Amino acid sequence: MTKWVYSFGGGASDGDAGLRNLLGGKGANLAEMSNLGLPVPPGFTISTEVCTAYYDNNRVYPAELKAQIAEALAKVEGIVGANFGDKANPLLVSVRSGARASMPGMMDTVLNLGLNDETVEGLAALSGNPRFAYDSYRRFIQMYSDVVLEVDHYHFEEILDIHKESLGVTLDTELNVEALRELVAAYKAKVQEELGSPFPTDPHEQLWGAIGAVFNSWQNDRAKVYRRLHNIPEAWGTAVNVQAMVFGNMGEDSATGVAFTRNPATGTREVYGEYLLNAQGEDVVAGIRTPRYISTAAKLAAGETDPSLEESLPQTFAELSAIMDKLEAHYRDMQDIEFTVQKGRLWMLQTRSGKRTAAAALKIAVEMASEGLITEREAIGRMDPEALDQLLHPTLDPKAHKEILTRGLPASPGAASGIIVFDADEAERSAAEGRDVILVRIETSPEDIHGMHAARGILTSRGGMTSHAAVVARGMGRPCVSGAGSLRIDYAAGTLTIGTEVLKRGDVLTLDGSTGEVIKGAVPTINPELSGDFATLMGWADKVRRMKVRTNAETPLDARTAREFGAEGIGLCRTEHMFFEADRIMAVREMILSETEAERRAALAKLLPVQRQDFTELFHIMKGLPVTIRLLDPPLHEFLPKTDEELKEIADQAGVSLATMRKRANELHEFNPMLGHRGCRLGISYPEIYEMQARAIFEATLQVFRETGDTVVPEIMIPLVGAKKELDILKGKIDAIAAELGFKESGYIVGTMIELPRAALLADQIAQSAAFFSFGTNDLTQTTYGLSRDDSANFLDDYLRSGIYEKDPFVTLDREGVGQLIRIAAEKGRATRPGIKLGICGEHGGDPASIAFCEEVSLDYVSCSPYRVPIARLAAAQAVLNNAPAKD
Amino acid sequence: MTKWVYSFGGGASDGDAGLRNLLGGKGANLAEMSNLGLPVPPGFTISTEVCTAYYDNNRVYPAELKAQIAEALAKVEGIVGANFGDKANPLLVSVRSGARASMPGMMDTVLNLGLNDETVEGLAALSGNPRFAYDSYRRFIQMYSDVVLEVDHYHFEEILDIHKESLGVTLDTELNVEALRELVAAYKAKVQEELGSPFPTDPHEQLWGAIGAVFNSWQNDRAKVYRRLHNIPEAWGTAVNVQAMVFGNMGEDSATGVAFTRNPATGTREVYGEYLLNAQGEDVVAGIRTPRYISTAAKLAAGETDPSLEESLPQTFAELSAIMDKLEAHYRDMQDIEFTVQKGRLWMLQTRSGKRTAAAALKIAVEMASEGLITEREAIGRMDPEALDQLLHPTLDPKAHKEILTRGLPASPGAASGIIVFDADEAERSAAEGRDVILVRIETSPEDIHGMHAARGILTSRGGMTSHAAVVARGMGRPCVSGAGSLRIDYAAGTLTIGTEVLKRGDVLTLDGSTGEVIKGAVPTINPELSGDFATLMGWADKVRRMKVRTNAETPLDARTAREFGAEGIGLCRTEHMFFEADRIMAVREMILSETEAERRAALAKLLPVQRQDFTELFHIMKGLPVTIRLLDPPLHEFLPKTDEELKEIADQAGVSLATMRKRANELHEFNPMLGHRGCRLGISYPEIYEMQARAIFEATLQVFRETGDTVVPEIMIPLVGAKKELDILKGKIDAIAAELGFKESGYIVGTMIELPRAALLADQIAQSAAFFSFGTNDLTQTTYGLSRDDSANFLDDYLRSGIYEKDPFVTLDREGVGQLIRIAAEKGRATRPGIKLGICGEHGGDPASIAFCEEVSLDYVSCSPYRVPIARLAAAQAVLNNAPAKD
Repeated sequence: MTKWVYSFGGGASDGDAGLRNLLGGKGANLAEMSNLGLPVPPGFTISTEVCTAYYDNNRVYPAELKAQIAEALAKVEGIVGANFGDKANPLLVSVRSGARASMPGMMDTVLNLGLNDETVEGLAALSGNPRFAYDSYRRFIQMYSDVVLEVDHYHFEEILDIHKESLGVTLDTELNVEALRELVAAYKAKVQEELGSPFPTDPHEQLWGAIGAVFNSWQNDRAKVYRRLHNIPEAWGTAVNVQAMVFGNMGEDSATGVAFTRNPATGTREVYGEYLLNAQGEDVVAGIRTPRYISTAAKLAAGETDPSLEESLPQTFAELSAIMDKLEAHYRDMQDIEFTVQKGRLWMLQTRSGKRTAAAALKIAVEMASEGLITEREAIGRMDPEALDQLLHPTLDPKAHKEILTRGLPASPGAASGIIVFDADEAERSAAEGRDVILVRIETSPEDIHGMHAARGILTSRGGMTSHAAVVARGMGRPCVSGAGSLRIDYAAGTLTIGTEVLKRGDVLTLDGSTGEVIKGAVPTINPELSGDFATLMGWADKVRRMKVRTNAETPLDARTAREFGAEGIGLCRTEHMFFEADRIMAVREMILSETEAERRAALAKLLPVQRQDFTELFHIMKGLPVTIRLLDPPLHEFLPKTDEELKEIADQAGVSLATMRKRANELHEFNPMLGHRGCRLGISYPEIYEMQARAIFEATLQVFRETGDTVVPEIMIPLVGAKKELDILKGKIDAIAAELGFKESGYIVGTMIELPRAALLADQIAQSAAFFSFGTNDLTQTTYGLSRDDSANFLDDYLRSGIYEKDPFVTLDREGVGQLIRIAAEKGRATRPGIKLGICGEHGGDPASIAFCEEVSLDYVSCSPYRVPIARLAAAQAVLNNAPAKD
Repeated sequence: MTKWVYSFGGGASDGDAGLRNLLGGKGANLAEMSNLGLPVPPGFTISTEVCTAYYDNNRVYPAELKAQIAEALAKVEGIVGANFGDKANPLLVSVRSGARASMPGMMDTVLNLGLNDETVEGLAALSGNPRFAYDSYRRFIQMYSDVVLEVDHYHFEEILDIHKESLGVTLDTELNVEALRELVAAYKAKVQEELGSPFPTDPHEQLWGAIGAVFNSWQNDRAKVYRRLHNIPEAWGTAVNVQAMVFGNMGEDSATGVAFTRNPATGTREVYGEYLLNAQGEDVVAGIRTPRYISTAAKLAAGETDPSLEESLPQTFAELSAIMDKLEAHYRDMQDIEFTVQKGRLWMLQTRSGKRTAAAALKIAVEMASEGLITEREAIGRMDPEALDQLLHPTLDPKAHKEILTRGLPASPGAASGIIVFDADEAERSAAEGRDVILVRIETSPEDIHGMHAARGILTSRGGMTSHAAVVARGMGRPCVSGAGSLRIDYAAGTLTIGTEVLKRGDVLTLDGSTGEVIKGAVPTINPELSGDFATLMGWADKVRRMKVRTNAETPLDARTAREFGAEGIGLCRTEHMFFEADRIMAVREMILSETEAERRAALAKLLPVQRQDFTELFHIMKGLPVTIRLLDPPLHEFLPKTDEELKEIADQAGVSLATMRKRANELHEFNPMLGHRGCRLGISYPEIYEMQARAIFEATLQVFRETGDTVVPEIMIPLVGAKKELDILKGKIDAIAAELGFKESGYIVGTMIELPRAALLADQIAQSAAFFSFGTNDLTQTTYGLSRDDSANFLDDYLRSGIYEKDPFVTLDREGVGQLIRIAAEKGRATRPGIKLGICGEHGGDPASIAFCEEVSLDYVSCSPYRVPIARLAAAQAVLNNAPAKD
């Protein structure tokens, strides 16, 4: 019989941390903590396999589930010494989701389950606190109705407001037992009104309702968006954790809190967290009351006056600190814990590896390795390469003038400027139009995730460092200032008021997520510091990785930036980018508009010196490192102006009639330019273009040698080759120019992009003529899928949503299809020319998952944009470690 | 040492007919005839390997060539009893090209080589005919200067005209020895003037010049065009034949002629040919004098009065007839021969398999099999499937009124109407614009080939049945009327005058190439007769072939036509073609312009009944045969009108504003529609479209069952699948509708196109859900090459010319690339689902070379346009025979 339910608590568990896939992160860690002898309220986990079975079987549970849950519940009753539904001594439980990967705020939770008109009286009697009992009861009804019965929560908030108004009170805590009792009655009446059936009073019915709600929430829209953004497969499913309730809201000797074993923003080793006295856990996370610091040191550092947990419950603090040390040592990673103190007794509700900023992740990884807690190789694996991105982007220039409007919590580091928007949808729309936006909200909720993703930064007026906004922003690498309490946000008016300053939708704002500053207007930025922990970890990664990391660059700025980031050469210099610059586009257009070869050669003669100068500069910057130069690739019409006015201007300057200009532009029109007259096809039709480029490369090589004595061995790359003979013809022309200028065969190499399926399939032939292959995975993805990147936006979402594509194939390399072609090409290329140099220069070259694939097929290098070079260095090291797991 | 030169003549040869690749067709057959003991002037063949070596080695000859030629020349001198360059007894030779495949008129020829001011006197003395000697000399200078020295022939024509004028004569034959002697002097002076160096007088220098000219002519533009049109690889090269001259212009007992062993137009078994008394061979082929019939029967049938060869030289005729019988029996195929009679002695100059019309090829193949000369299987192989095309197209309706303007020679069968053009370039341009054109020329030359290819028919006022126009038109399958002597063509005025009738450029003309009629205006046509020899050969082919032949059809007319041509089902019914019809395009546009699913469903509801009716009709026509229906494939914007006026009309009719219409149309715009929102991507985004189509198919199936009791098992095909899950989702929706209508699983099948590289690479996964694959090789070629068919015209010529592509990959399947994907997909598909049904429905399905590939990879069927069905049936049979050669 399949085991669907796993018990924990009372110092023993059916499961452990190793069963994460089966029990979800929360369930596995509850079991592990229980096994470690830590104080965990007893409970049980309904496994993720139930979720999968449920969805595979038209939302019907496995037959054995009911009996297994009954048995597990009985075990909890035994440990707690209370009975589910018992009027005198009722067991209350929480029901929580718990997937394999943490999905904060995405799944629904129900607390205080088991309360009804009878058990509430038992709770009142047992706790000696009827107000607490009824407060729990009305919270339960509201939460359960919202999450399970789908009666929208605003109904209950409305009732609450009316009650408070009629009683003349402003705070919930001012409501007395009588008022809460009336509220409960009013809530239940509203449920009856909305549903036409009463609120369920049977605790077992409540329990099954909540379990169903958790499983169903796996497929709600917020969960789907989160999974998509975080690449979590739908098939993983969620577990459900049913756990005896403990109460942090039973008085001033009760509390609830969250804490990290190290500072999740900076990585500093300290007890870092927040708590609320006399509160339930959801109150902290929801950011409704502003929480206090756990440690006195943190409190003092922040200049706060409210007592820390260390001060208010010193015994508990000591106990908690010890448990945190134990957990970190046990898990060998920074832990994010939740705890509740019920009448002075500490209960652990959760532990998990804590989310952290990139800076913190870096510091923690390097320091833990230094502490001997983990190995250097493990440290490499601990850093998400994508997260490095946050450390590489500019921060505010400290010397710049800053008109600081206010200060909030430094919830997620980094700096950003942008226009103010107040709505997630608007943020998405404006970002799609190319604008940098700052999303400003009173607080954020899971419904805002798409807007947060689209925004450059997030600002909230409410919520702490562990509020939804803060946690999600850190995960996304967006700067965030949270809980900036002096802000007044008026959604309807579209204004943000700070003192007397009124900012409107569309005004520009700058956030510094590392300091919490909110600044008027845009502020200049400076480049990040790349020494210290960063350099240490990169050094470890460089020792481990096998693949070289090059960059895609054609401007001196990009080339220099990439070298600072550790690029080991240029893998893709797109010569056409050099054609667009203002001082040469006229000559380019003249070349395109030529009717004869002679005219074209005349125009090309003007381009030769500037191209030569471009290459000379690049060779100087990359001194001693390889430089791969791709000859002209895009269809010529890309260089032509689009409007009639511009066309007229060009016509006048080029001395041809507008009609001629239009005719020629029309001749260049293509139905499917991506599949048109581009790449080496231009070289075949107009060999003089490639000849000019080859000449510029060779002459630059000679010039650099004359100027510095450095010997550059340029790598000339022919794009869009689909047949060996294309390469032969063009290589022949390049060789002729090389020979004319006195180059030896060893003085340069000629290779090709592999970016068409046919090239991959015929790589054995092509390798006869190509000294290297560079996989152009942008085009290869387009042709393998028959999918234009420019046109796929319309339906790519449909494809991701319905799970047809697990990931956007233009972001992460499709191993099955495109990857298969790469394997074929690598194998055939090496069969013909053992040791042929293989690299990748599509945008996948900077994507960690794609880099892992490149390691698997033993490419020699990846090439990516300058800012992704460190990411690629780290990812390449991780790929080596994952390919052949370390023995230490 | 490599043997570069092969001697023949004197009853023995170094080579034979089996060495065709080495010696070219002409050289191999001269050797063979010599071996057979037939009278062949002695000579030698310089092999095709010399040509290849010459081009591989920068146009330098192999070192040993000179000595081998000298030796071979000495052998000829020995046999003839004359010496090359001997003043008293000079040996004269012809130098001719001879490639592996016949390339009539494409390669250059030099006759009478060896003449100079001294040897001409020897020839005069020996022949006793100084006029003949000087006429030969001046012809030699003109031909050699034109072909070898590249002094344009008009220079010589001008000189000739001036001489004739000054002497007051009009015919060349009226020039006496003195005049010819002066002409020679004037010709030589012109050469000196043009080249700055004298005409070569050393016969050896002449010989090497001519040999070089032949080899160089392999790369002239005419040769390249011909090779491209006839798919002859450049690498084959040409041989050079040097042969002792014999003279058909030595008086009235001399003659020259060409003949076929069967009638090349009809296939009838008869001596068929033409000759000229006292003429050189080139006179017949060039069509300058109108030749006479060889047999008296043919002469009488044509109503001619000039004596036949049978009458003028009966002895020679008898000898020739016997040789022709011997050659046909020896070669087991209809022969095309050239002969010369020198002073009563018959010499054979060439034999080769004769070009023939499709009708003749069919009749000859079937009759030779009936005669026992060849087997049925050989008969299948004798018919070029492409040539069948000529038999399948309509001929003139005999009941139609025809205003016959004149009658020429029935040079190439078939009928065509079109507008008159007088120029090959214009023919090409007009045809490219979609017009049917008739190319009208006084006579045609190799420079006109591209225009002849573009034209629907060819009309000439000069030249016989073996003139350039006639031979080329038959090869191309274009109707041709040649030698219509009553026409007066004025190129400058752009007029064609017949009696008093003056037709202008652009007027419509009809040609009947089977009768020689030239008819004013357009004439209705009728379908060809498909019984008789055609049915016999098709029957033999059907016994042999393994693959089924289906058709691509969606209209009742196409479906009926295809059935008449023997289609065994529909392999591709493109449902979108049904959407374009006038009575439904409005509903289609309404559907596309819907903003909501509800609106879209409303529009689709209007389309359902018409689609159902379409399918019902097709099922009725195809009764009992499989029908594969492809769901909507093209991007939706293809259905929208293009102009603002049309958009406005649609907007009004659809009840939306023009602005809305424009906005929606703009939203549908794509940069690369071929790679855009099309195929099953539409089905994923708008499932209701495919649901409507599936419903229409199933309801039509039910209706046909109700009406006739026939059980149709529809094959529903999902286009542009690239991932298994796309197919799963859409198949799920189709299955749901099938279930709703009470269909069993065996009542229909769902399969997919394989038209993306990714689909081919993941065919193992896709086959889990697909009951069949149909290779959509149009799209598969586009994506494998990254090449848009619509945009490739601009540079495809460059690619064919430079030999990068041997053939247009959209016409003949690329075995190496696209074919490799097909092999992968077939193998993987069968591994998952043994016996999975595999077919091809791209246009390659009607191309014989591609069909051969389909047989090699064991596809189950090919599907092609209706008129190509017989071609595919024959090609499929030939593929079987070529794959496993018959033992009989």
